[in-house]
Order: sequence, then structure tokens, then C-alpha cells
Amino acid sequence: MKEIILHESGLRDGLQMEKTTVPFEKKIEWIDALIEAGMDMIQVGSFVHPVKVPQMADTDKIFRYYNEPGRKPEKVILSGLALNGKGVERAIDCGCDMICVGVSASETHSMKNTRMTVADAADRIIKIAVEAMKSGKTVQASVQSAFGCGFEGNVPKENVIAIAEKYFSAGIKKISLADTAGHGNPYQVADLFSTIMKMDPEAELAAHFHNTYGLGLANCYAAIESGAKFLESAFGGLGGCPFTKLAAGNVCTEDLVHFLQRAGIREDINLLKLIDIAKDLSIFFDRELPGYVYKSGPIGK
Amino acid sequence: MKEIILHESGLRDGLQMEKTTVPFEKKIEWIDALIEAGMDMIQVGSFVHPVKVPQMADTDKIFRYYNEPGRKPEKVILSGLALNGKGVERAIDCGCDMICVGVSASETHSMKNTRMTVADAADRIIKIAVEAMKSGKTVQASVQSAFGCGFEGNVPKENVIAIAEKYFSAGIKKISLADTAGHGNPYQVADLFSTIMKMDPEAELAAHFHNTYGLGLANCYAAIESGAKFLESAFGGLGGCPFTKLAAGNVCTEDLVHFLQRAGIREDINLLKLIDIAKDLSIFFDRELPGYVYKSGPIGK
Repeated sequence: MKEIILHESGLRDGLQMEKTTVPFEKKIEWIDALIEAGMDMIQVGSFVHPVKVPQMADTDKIFRYYNEPGRKPEKVILSGLALNGKGVERAIDCGCDMICVGVSASETHSMKNTRMTVADAADRIIKIAVEAMKSGKTVQASVQSAFGCGFEGNVPKENVIAIAEKYFSAGIKKISLADTAGHGNPYQVADLFSTIMKMDPEAELAAHFHNTYGLGLANCYAAIESGAKFLESAFGGLGGCPFTKLAAGNVCTEDLVHFLQRAGIREDINLLKLIDIAKDLSIFFDRELPGYVYKSGPIGK
Repeated sequence: MKEIILHESGLRDGLQMEKTTVPFEKKIEWIDALIEAGMDMIQVGSFVHPVKVPQMADTDKIFRYYNEPGRKPEKVILSGLALNGKGVERAIDCGCDMICVGVSASETHSMKNTRMTVADAADRIIKIAVEAMKSGKTVQASVQSAFGCGFEGNVPKENVIAIAEKYFSAGIKKISLADTAGHGNPYQVADLFSTIMKMDPEAELAAHFHNTYGLGLANCYAAIESGAKFLESAFGGLGGCPFTKLAAGNVCTEDLVHFLQRAGIREDINLLKLIDIAKDLSIFFDRELPGYVYKSGPIGK
């Protein structure tokens, strides 16, 4: 039996693309349902400036809510994304279990996001990450645009390896390879995950794919077969731009769980509950979502 | 470089689901465009009763058209599906290059389609196939519902192996494993293709998947890695039922080619031409199709 850990990222990577602001209470309802369904990790938001991304303004409040006595979910890790030192400070302050940070492997993407070269951004993020780990936090560091870049096109594999080397040297073992633009294909995924796995036998690799070109689940399969243990996905397949015809976003959580369970993996997860959540998302946003299984229902016996 | 042969099946497995009858001239336009794009094989229709499936009524006429002097496409094989002896007679009569036949591995599916058990249906179809091969025709025999059945659910692997054994014993080397209901997952696909490949080193295996649960391309990847050489797909991803929300049909040709080309496979195919065909299909049927790449455009450099 393969040991796969599921990291729901819809509340961050899905909702940040949505114009309709989701009330705090609705977020709590969805998080509670995800916990009940048996998800292992849930990324509840990001520590960005509330004016820049109003959808993420209540991230600290969500962590404080779950840190109140009696509310802490037992086996579930709640994570948050921090882009800089200020974000990590907020994460520590509100009691975030696991802090996710990242660096883009594309120079253009890095410049646009951070006004820094990839190398400078990596050095800065690693410094912050090491500080957070010293204060007892779990840190996962991602390599964004690891399989291609919307601005640059191909991203050299060497760029990804160089960032991973820096992470490993700094003692960061939890690394997420993120296909920010959805450019990856399973051959490339298998090659990159195998390469990074060989660099450090203690590596705990996460896979983060988008389904822009229909290859999300194919890439998940290739990643699992090449050493990925953590899979990141978004409920309903949220995360695509809802204002164009190009609706494909993150790998869809309930489609991923359906796939895994068909192969006998993670049969403990409550798929029907995940489907209910996706249906509720579809009602809330008043549109059809990219996921398949919430529409078709799961395969019967 | 992997040698993958692409078999466009949209004119048969896609159009047969559509209520709007496609005029003969429009079919010729699409076939000509597919030939120009560089597809290797094109299934232009099925030899079924024209009253039962009016959409397929001009199948013989299409073959006769392409058999007129100067019209025979040079490197492209035009195939047709025959369900019984009468169908094979028609196929031979109109000059069909390659005759596709099939048997379901699900007893219920077989009974509903042919009023015969799987074993009886296999014996009958093999007899017909052997006759067709004797008359100089190329024959591909498929195992339908090879990965699950909409009526029965799980289909035992042994059923598929038993049919494949009969095919091999009869000298039929071209075998298509068809996921009629879209139930397959890449672990199952890898297992079944590997098993069948080991049974006969001269086997020429084709893979036919539907994207009902989002796993179409993942299954193609697993099949290629496990010995499949022929991939069947439908332009625009046609083949789902257009009258429900469950729009996913066959694996989408242009998405598949986009995936393969990202991995350096079959870069000779004209992807932009395939995208143009999908756009034209979308206009003709006046709805959005399941394919991704015709909407997003291919990934730039």
C-alpha cells in the first residue's frame, strides 16, 4: 500500500482566484467538512497583505479560531502560505502549524513576484525558513514554476535542482515541486521527481499540479511513482481563472481521491463527503466547476 | 523516441453520440483536415444498420469516396467498425482498409449488445475476423469494457485475458483494450497492458480510453509505458453524452498530441491544425467541448 498524504490547498490556491469574497463562517464550514472527510493537511490561507488579496484577509483569524480550546483538530495539520518575513511572523503569531514558503525557478516569474533574482529570493526565503524551524515550526518550501513558466516557457531543470540543493543544505527536507502554470507532462514529472529524490534520501517531496492542459492526474500518477509522498490539490478543481473559458485550475481533490481509491490507496478518506463539499462550492460560486467526479458521481461497485 | 501511432476515432465513437446528423460533405472536410494534420489512422464510421444509427449511414459512401482514383490518402489508414458478419461484408465491399471488431469482457454488456455470452460472442467475432484476414484485410480486435463496466462494475482481469488468448490463438495480433465506461485507472492500465504484452511478444496493442473521471491522459501515459503502441482518441474529446452535465467523452486527440509533443513524441503532427478542427467542431455542435487545449491554446516556447 502506498502511503500518500493529501494536502488540500483549495482555500488558498483556489479561493485566491475568486472575486466573490467567502465569509469567514463559510470557510470554517468547508474546513470542518474537509477535516471530517479525513484530509491530512489543509492549507487555510496565505499571510499576504489583506488589501492586496482581500480573500485572504482572515487567514490569521482562521488559525486563531482553530487554536481555541477544544477546536484543534486532532490528526489534521493546518498550513498557511507565507511569502516573506512579515508573513512568517504572522504565521508564528497566530499559531499556524505548518508554514509553506516558496521560490520560483523562473527568473521572470521571480522578478515579477519578488523583484529579486531566483538566487537572491532563495537565499532570503531559506533564511526565513530556517528561523521558523528554529522556533519549532514545520516548514515546507516549494519550487514554483518548476515545470515551466507562463512568462518564460521552458524552465531549465538545473534551476530547480539548484534551489533544491540550497533547501537540502539548509536542512529543509519538505520540498514541494509546483507546476504553477500547468506546463508539466508526466515524463518530465517522473524525471524531475526521481532526480530530486536521489539528491537526498530523506527528502519528503510534495507534488503540486494544475490541470490547465488536462494532465493534472497523469502528473500526480507520475509523481507518486517517482517518489512524491504529499499531493496538493484543490476542492472542486478551483484555481483556474473563472472569467475565461479556460476553467481548469488545480488538480481536483475529489477526482484525485477517486483515482487513488480506485487503485486501493487511501480508502479511509470519505469521498462522498468531498463530493458534497464540491457541490456546495458549485452552489456558492454559482457555476460549474472543473472537477469530474462531483458531476458524474463515483464509480459504483 | 517512442513510436506511437495515433488512431483518430471521433468520426465513429464521437459522432455516434451526437443527435445532430453531420452531412457527408462535413465529414469529408474533417477527414481531409485530419489527414492533412498527419494523423496515422482515422476511423471514419461503423457498419451498423443505418436505421439504428443514422449518423453512421454514410460509412460505406465515405470509403467509396476515398477509393476513387486520386483520392486515396497515401500514408493514412482509414478504418471502420463492424459488429457482425454483415458489417464485415459491407466493409470488404466498400474497400475499407482496416476492419475493427470487438467483444465485451463484461457478460451483461455482451448480452445487452449481442444477446450472447462473452465466450460465444468471442468465438463468433473471431470466426468473422479470420475470414476477413483471409481476404487480405487488416483486422484489429478490441476487448470492450476491459477496465470495468457501467452495468457490472468491476470486470475480472481473467475475462480480458481469456479473450486476448483466443485472439492470439486465432492469429490476431492487433488488439485494442478499450475502457468503454471510463473506469480504468493508471495502475490497472499498467497491470493489464503488461500482462497482455507478456502473452505474445508480437502483440500490437492499442489503448482506448474515455475521460469520464479525468483519467484519460493518465491512462494513456500508463499504457504507453506498458507497451501500447496505438492510441485511440476523438477530436475535441467528443463521445460523452452531450445531454447531461457529464460532458467527458473519449480521450481528446489534440490534448493527447499536445501532451506527447511536450514530451518530444510525434512532433511531426500539426497540432494547430488539430486545434482548428476542434474549434470547427465546437462551432458545428454549438457548444463547448471537453478538450482543454483547443480552448487554452498550446503552451508557447
